[in-house]
Amino acid sequence: MTFKITIIGAGSVGFTKKLCQDILKVPEFEDIEIALTDINAHNLDMIAQIIRRIVDVNRLKTRITATTDRRSALEGARYVMCCVRIGGLEAFADDIRIPLKYGVDQCVGDTICAGGILYGQRGIPAMLEFCKDIREVAEPGALLLNYANPMAMMTWACIEYGKVNTVGLCHGVQGGHRQIAAALRVPLDEVDIICSGINHQTWYLDIRHDGRKIGKDELLSGFMSHPIYAHQEKVRIDVLKRFGFYSTESNGHLSEYLPWYRKRPEQIMDWISMDDWIHGETGGYLRYSTENRAWFETDFPLFLEEAGKPLADHQRTDEHASYILESLETGRVYRGHFNVRNGGVIRNLAPDCIIESPGFVDRFGINMAEGITLPDACAATCSASVNVQRMSVKAAMTGDIDLLKQAVLHDPLVGAICTPEEVWQMVDEMVVAQAQWLPQYADAVPAARERLKTPRVKTRDWEGAARLQVRSVQDLRDAKAKKAESEPVE
Amino acid sequence: MTFKITIIGAGSVGFTKKLCQDILKVPEFEDIEIALTDINAHNLDMIAQIIRRIVDVNRLKTRITATTDRRSALEGARYVMCCVRIGGLEAFADDIRIPLKYGVDQCVGDTICAGGILYGQRGIPAMLEFCKDIREVAEPGALLLNYANPMAMMTWACIEYGKVNTVGLCHGVQGGHRQIAAALRVPLDEVDIICSGINHQTWYLDIRHDGRKIGKDELLSGFMSHPIYAHQEKVRIDVLKRFGFYSTESNGHLSEYLPWYRKRPEQIMDWISMDDWIHGETGGYLRYSTENRAWFETDFPLFLEEAGKPLADHQRTDEHASYILESLETGRVYRGHFNVRNGGVIRNLAPDCIIESPGFVDRFGINMAEGITLPDACAATCSASVNVQRMSVKAAMTGDIDLLKQAVLHDPLVGAICTPEEVWQMVDEMVVAQAQWLPQYADAVPAARERLKTPRVKTRDWEGAARLQVRSVQDLRDAKAKKAESEPVE
Amino acid sequence: MTFKITIIGAGSVGFTKKLCQDILKVPEFEDIEIALTDINAHNLDMIAQIIRRIVDVNRLKTRITATTDRRSALEGARYVMCCVRIGGLEAFADDIRIPLKYGVDQCVGDTICAGGILYGQRGIPAMLEFCKDIREVAEPGALLLNYANPMAMMTWACIEYGKVNTVGLCHGVQGGHRQIAAALRVPLDEVDIICSGINHQTWYLDIRHDGRKIGKDELLSGFMSHPIYAHQEKVRIDVLKRFGFYSTESNGHLSEYLPWYRKRPEQIMDWISMDDWIHGETGGYLRYSTENRAWFETDFPLFLEEAGKPLADHQRTDEHASYILESLETGRVYRGHFNVRNGGVIRNLAPDCIIESPGFVDRFGINMAEGITLPDACAATCSASVNVQRMSVKAAMTGDIDLLKQAVLHDPLVGAICTPEEVWQMVDEMVVAQAQWLPQYADAVPAARERLKTPRVKTRDWEGAARLQVRSVQDLRDAKAKKAESEPVE
Amino acid sequence: MTFKITIIGAGSVGFTKKLCQDILKVPEFEDIEIALTDINAHNLDMIAQIIRRIVDVNRLKTRITATTDRRSALEGARYVMCCVRIGGLEAFADDIRIPLKYGVDQCVGDTICAGGILYGQRGIPAMLEFCKDIREVAEPGALLLNYANPMAMMTWACIEYGKVNTVGLCHGVQGGHRQIAAALRVPLDEVDIICSGINHQTWYLDIRHDGRKIGKDELLSGFMSHPIYAHQEKVRIDVLKRFGFYSTESNGHLSEYLPWYRKRPEQIMDWISMDDWIHGETGGYLRYSTENRAWFETDFPLFLEEAGKPLADHQRTDEHASYILESLETGRVYRGHFNVRNGGVIRNLAPDCIIESPGFVDRFGINMAEGITLPDACAATCSASVNVQRMSVKAAMTGDIDLLKQAVLHDPLVGAICTPEEVWQMVDEMVVAQAQWLPQYADAVPAARERLKTPRVKTRDWEGAARLQVRSVQDLRDAKAKKAESEPVE
Repeated sequence: MTFKITIIGAGSVGFTKKLCQDILKVPEFEDIEIALTDINAHNLDMIAQIIRRIVDVNRLKTRITATTDRRSALEGARYVMCCVRIGGLEAFADDIRIPLKYGVDQCVGDTICAGGILYGQRGIPAMLEFCKDIREVAEPGALLLNYANPMAMMTWACIEYGKVNTVGLCHGVQGGHRQIAAALRVPLDEVDIICSGINHQTWYLDIRHDGRKIGKDELLSGFMSHPIYAHQEKVRIDVLKRFGFYSTESNGHLSEYLPWYRKRPEQIMDWISMDDWIHGETGGYLRYSTENRAWFETDFPLFLEEAGKPLADHQRTDEHASYILESLETGRVYRGHFNVRNGGVIRNLAPDCIIESPGFVDRFGINMAEGITLPDACAATCSASVNVQRMSVKAAMTGDIDLLKQAVLHDPLVGAICTPEEVWQMVDEMVVAQAQWLPQYADAVPAARERLKTPRVKTRDWEGAARLQVRSVQDLRDAKAKKAESEPVE
Repeated sequence: MTFKITIIGAGSVGFTKKLCQDILKVPEFEDIEIALTDINAHNLDMIAQIIRRIVDVNRLKTRITATTDRRSALEGARYVMCCVRIGGLEAFADDIRIPLKYGVDQCVGDTICAGGILYGQRGIPAMLEFCKDIREVAEPGALLLNYANPMAMMTWACIEYGKVNTVGLCHGVQGGHRQIAAALRVPLDEVDIICSGINHQTWYLDIRHDGRKIGKDELLSGFMSHPIYAHQEKVRIDVLKRFGFYSTESNGHLSEYLPWYRKRPEQIMDWISMDDWIHGETGGYLRYSTENRAWFETDFPLFLEEAGKPLADHQRTDEHASYILESLETGRVYRGHFNVRNGGVIRNLAPDCIIESPGFVDRFGINMAEGITLPDACAATCSASVNVQRMSVKAAMTGDIDLLKQAVLHDPLVGAICTPEEVWQMVDEMVVAQAQWLPQYADAVPAARERLKTPRVKTRDWEGAARLQVRSVQDLRDAKAKKAESEPVE
Repeated sequence: MTFKITIIGAGSVGFTKKLCQDILKVPEFEDIEIALTDINAHNLDMIAQIIRRIVDVNRLKTRITATTDRRSALEGARYVMCCVRIGGLEAFADDIRIPLKYGVDQCVGDTICAGGILYGQRGIPAMLEFCKDIREVAEPGALLLNYANPMAMMTWACIEYGKVNTVGLCHGVQGGHRQIAAALRVPLDEVDIICSGINHQTWYLDIRHDGRKIGKDELLSGFMSHPIYAHQEKVRIDVLKRFGFYSTESNGHLSEYLPWYRKRPEQIMDWISMDDWIHGETGGYLRYSTENRAWFETDFPLFLEEAGKPLADHQRTDEHASYILESLETGRVYRGHFNVRNGGVIRNLAPDCIIESPGFVDRFGINMAEGITLPDACAATCSASVNVQRMSVKAAMTGDIDLLKQAVLHDPLVGAICTPEEVWQMVDEMVVAQAQWLPQYADAVPAARERLKTPRVKTRDWEGAARLQVRSVQDLRDAKAKKAESEPVE
Repeated sequence: MTFKITIIGAGSVGFTKKLCQDILKVPEFEDIEIALTDINAHNLDMIAQIIRRIVDVNRLKTRITATTDRRSALEGARYVMCCVRIGGLEAFADDIRIPLKYGVDQCVGDTICAGGILYGQRGIPAMLEFCKDIREVAEPGALLLNYANPMAMMTWACIEYGKVNTVGLCHGVQGGHRQIAAALRVPLDEVDIICSGINHQTWYLDIRHDGRKIGKDELLSGFMSHPIYAHQEKVRIDVLKRFGFYSTESNGHLSEYLPWYRKRPEQIMDWISMDDWIHGETGGYLRYSTENRAWFETDFPLFLEEAGKPLADHQRTDEHASYILESLETGRVYRGHFNVRNGGVIRNLAPDCIIESPGFVDRFGINMAEGITLPDACAATCSASVNVQRMSVKAAMTGDIDLLKQAVLHDPLVGAICTPEEVWQMVDEMVVAQAQWLPQYADAVPAARERLKTPRVKTRDWEGAARLQVRSVQDLRDAKAKKAESEPVE
């Protein structure tokens, strides 16, 4: 069995390593090619060294290639994995900084809300270039496995406009699944779940412990009495209490999709936890990403050495990618939760939106389970996001800055905090600041810049309600020494 | 041609008179029966005197009957018109007063928002009783013309659960149509419109002056330069500026469906006008209704005398009801905007919701024009309301107080102002206060009352950001003497 | 008011004259341009003379132009009317002749069945060229009013592939409406109808006489006792008896869409009438068209003279075209039955098919009445045709001869008569015979020709079960002298 | 793990034995109860003896109960399996005999066509009684696994009217899968398939050998060169040649769903094979069933002895039932092809119809793979059957004999052979003959009987084009001695 996998944005070193290790664990895949590509030659070189070392040490036949020429990397690929971040940490910082001036205090900012919407504006033009290359030089029918955020918007654009067979992948469902098992104090493999909705707003609709259905009260009591979750997951637990269903998304992330928890700066601290990883802090994921980038740079030799451990000791992670490939190539059925165009899967969300819902992969592709009806409150919450996403994707495709502003205006948290005039000015400011990554708005930028000369609303100068400082590499080492849990958001 | 029309809630004297006069103007309808019914015998008597006087003076053959026995009034009816207000002004006052304690400052409060949702909880059980009677004693296939608010929820319940052929009617579209012609400074009959969306959030999607399409800029400039609208319709004009489309709903009413204009009490006055009628004042329609009720009581003799004028001098209004009946009975085609189940009419709203959109009435019924796609921002705004309505209707049918709270939580304005805990307490307080009209929550009230003994959130004691006092009858007479324009909300 | 109308295939002299006269009767249209175009210069010249004479005699300001250069005729047109017949009578003769060899005895052969499907293969490439011109040189958003058969397939191709705003028009519904009034022995204007389905298989779903619903038994008895229909419309009456609904299509035409009436040659005469016009005879419409063409040629001077009569004496016909234009330009509402893409109109036919159903034309376009459910037997019959049409249209677009054969194989009458092998050979024979009009099958023709050298099935040499000879012009004059009723099929 | 399974129609001895053996092979199921019920006490006793012997010999803890009281058998059941044949062989004989008089020569007659439609009329009232019992006394949410034919109609009625969670099961897909592997000369487990459509008209849309896609030509050549299939499966091979896809249904069975192969009696023999099992003979499945019933009666002691063999030697069959239960109870994923309501699964079939398509069973139920589009010719063929089924189911529910006649009239084979008058008389004759099993037509039977006194069409007295005699038990023993392959139709 031989085929080619291309990883775009392979310079996301940690994630690429994880993906590759998983893939290399599949016995049938020993004779494949993995092509790494990134616009950053330095990062690309680091990850190539790491993966090659894994291959060498384990005496595999896998061919590893690395090039900054994306098109050549895609030639003949049957599978393309994408984990890019357009605009990098620089644009990301603006996604957090500018909305803060208008009172919008985001924790992650990569899905919807002002930051996520702009992130999508940057990402979609890039994704469409990838799609063009895939259509033109990859294997016919090649599958794009997208990990890049904002997941729903990016996948939407690739499917509807990029015309590439695309599935969006995330590990949020697995993370919540583990939490539920922990909250119920039972082993993970005794807990079965149906989780459905849209990425980062997926709902555990049915939870069974050894086949017995777990009700809201039992679940709620499990979480409220859990020594860690009870204070780290306050928003999620409150949503569970109100809606009756637990949500996939981490505490701080969830809080920024909803109009209720972050609109009063003085109350934000009531809903979040500042210990450990990110549970709601202002710009938390930006801090986390910044720290990790620095850390990796410094400790590269250590990471390279670690790559020398035998693969046999590596436990395959629960990331979907390697399992999907395994199912498609061998026919062994894999059940997971995937981001695809809705069609007829979720009956009370729009057919054109990108949902995340259970599917079964076999030889023929990803088979989504038809016919799910979300509880009304979950559907209402999801459809508010979907409406924002639809306007955002269309704006990203057309460069229509008015539509972009309408998208931001309809964002639940922005809408609960800002007035229309504030939204209009905030978007102008963001588009001007990020113009280099927004080719589709080239014509709109000058007028926006002009409007900003005579601001119509006042802005606020602050760091947000709950800001932590970026830690030094030494701090991180110390912290790591103490513990080693928690999953990143992605 | 003979048939029977029944008017439920006929004690809405002014409105019933208008409906009857319109109907009596149709030449083919001279030999029909109009049955008036109301739970208030006094009001019923007043309106019966008025209508009979009209019939007598004009020497018509129409038979007018009046009874508080609704079921007997409905016997054999082919058309049923409904203009009830369950709970009357007493419950209405609570719809305004209690949300204010939680910071929710409503102007009308009869559509969605906390007041509108509770209004629906009161109205739906009553509507279902009407439907039961209609199914059992009216003419088979009888048509219910519903004027009662909250329009969308009430019509939804009658169609889906009441199993009665129902159309919801409102005159908001005609009102905005007149404004548009005025803003464009052209005669009304030269302006054609397509207006579509949901009741009170219908959008003028296409406006033609003598066939020429009117663009956003031209319309906006017309409104902004209009001597009255420029300051009375600030929210509508701002929405037109942001969305590109003018909305049907009056300024203050529109402001309470959206999360952006009434959430900061200190800015409410920027968006409303306190002169004349209701353009955004706190509890404006409650004040208006209270004044009118008193006025009518006092001046009844005058109104009765007025009924003695020849019908030939009455100009048929643009209320849809008499035209619908005329079309159904004679086959003359009538084009209007009607509230019906969506089905396949508006492609980007849910099939089960109640929309307001153009239709053509002929001998066979109301033919809705298929295949409208709302602009994305309009669809997003409407679908937020639809989601609230769906939860509200289901809650009203089942008495599920948690679902009712979810409905209120998802209301755009409530969501922008309150926290979940505040919503939970506010709904408890409203349900307890209005328990006498909420039979479906009988089982939930005791627990709610218990919870209220230990309130979890603080409330505010105020009159709202823009409160006017109820005027005396004499004040009203004086005001009327000065002018005589403006339309009520209904 | 000024705009331009272009008539493609204007050489259909009688029909073009009728259309133009109707249009010229609309007072607001006095200052427009009518551009006539046809590939046949001779016919074009004749019709141009006639129309110009009408304009002159009536002292109208209408500008009449005529050119064989279609593209220039379309320049700036707001409305395009199409009444072409690709392949003319020559190809038409093959549509009848070749299927007869395989036992398929068609009466008209212009809708589905072997002849209609091939007719569509010829017409669709031409229509797509018209559409290209319209998109490129006509007024933006120009409306194509298509009269060319096969109506459903042609309109389907223009909408889905030609990307032109298209409505298909036919007068079958009006014809049946007149018959129903006659069968009920009441004036036409007292009868209201809802007719819905697909072109040539539209069903009178609701018939009212002065508002009173007419049941199946009353209608059936009216037809069975009618002195003419009882023997001219036997198939239609039998279908009414079995299905409970009367169908639009003329007797002979209807018989060839169904598997039941023409499959046994020895019984065909039981179902048809040979007197007068065409009520089922073999190749009847081919004979009729051939006669008329000859007649017109000979009697042109007479026709020209007739054109000199004042327009005031011309009674506007019930063809939809002039009414549609009038509604669009003036806003006066017109109710008719139109051929459009289904979308959500008929709930139990596929959304992509072309339906014929009631609509209301106003300033904004053709508003189809949403939400019709056909009776199951009517839906089943229509969907059999729709499936044939879908395959035929796709085959016409792709030149996939296997798909074309599958289309013919699934035709109800062909399927009841032929074996698959016979269908395969028959289609080969038709494609080879008509190759000059079938550019999309250019690559498939040589192999088909090769296959025909070794025929696999036997064919029959006959004239059909009920063949009449083409009459001479003198015969026609004599016949006309005797009577003057009946409508052509189109 | 303990729960109860009820088998209705357990007297289908061979099939019940197979189902039970499969279930008893699941290790987790050792402690369950299997309740057998049948209206025939004698058959029930035989099967109970057999199953009990299996349990005893293998020292299982399974509880076996048997009763003719269906309701008590259903009490507390979590799973209900149904394999009834209403009217038994007696009514079945009429299903074949009467249509023959009108020229309709059926091979199996249990799906659509005249026989299958009447079979559905008998079965549906019984199924609805089962459903009532299930709703009332079985475990809430109990799953009905229906094996009874006509599969699509029966399952349709149970879901839409019986309101019971139902899945229809058949082994046709597995049978064709084995044939495909054999035709390709490769091991079955190297061949993966997607098969989709409606029961007995499911199409192998995608076939892979070790992941490599098999094209039409390769498959066709495999079948045409296969020593057995080339002459036993002529219709299926011809359909593959015309449509491009292989169908699930056995040769003779498929031939009776299509209008093309059985309409000319003199050509039927060209398409069928008379050797071995049933490949198209007239009334073949009736003969087969008759023979087997007699055989079983005679050889019961032998069968009972055979039941004494250890279960370890029994190879679990590929019937879906035991696998579905295993997946639901243990969570182990099972992929199969299931009959369920379409909803959004197959995009080009109606949402209300019963489809057969791939699904994955897990702890939560049967997850159908969303989003299949059938090739147009396959969809056209299926939708013709679906339309017949819809009318048949509605007729069965309402006792509307006109609708029943419309259903039969629209059957593809009946429609190709009969005239409407013949259909009307044939249905009258069938309804009268089977009146004892058709309670819903009780009111229609007298009039039908009356009409039959003056027949309007002539009938034919013959045995069909390809009739074999029922063989004696001794003949069967001899034949079995010679070979042991082939699967029954069911």
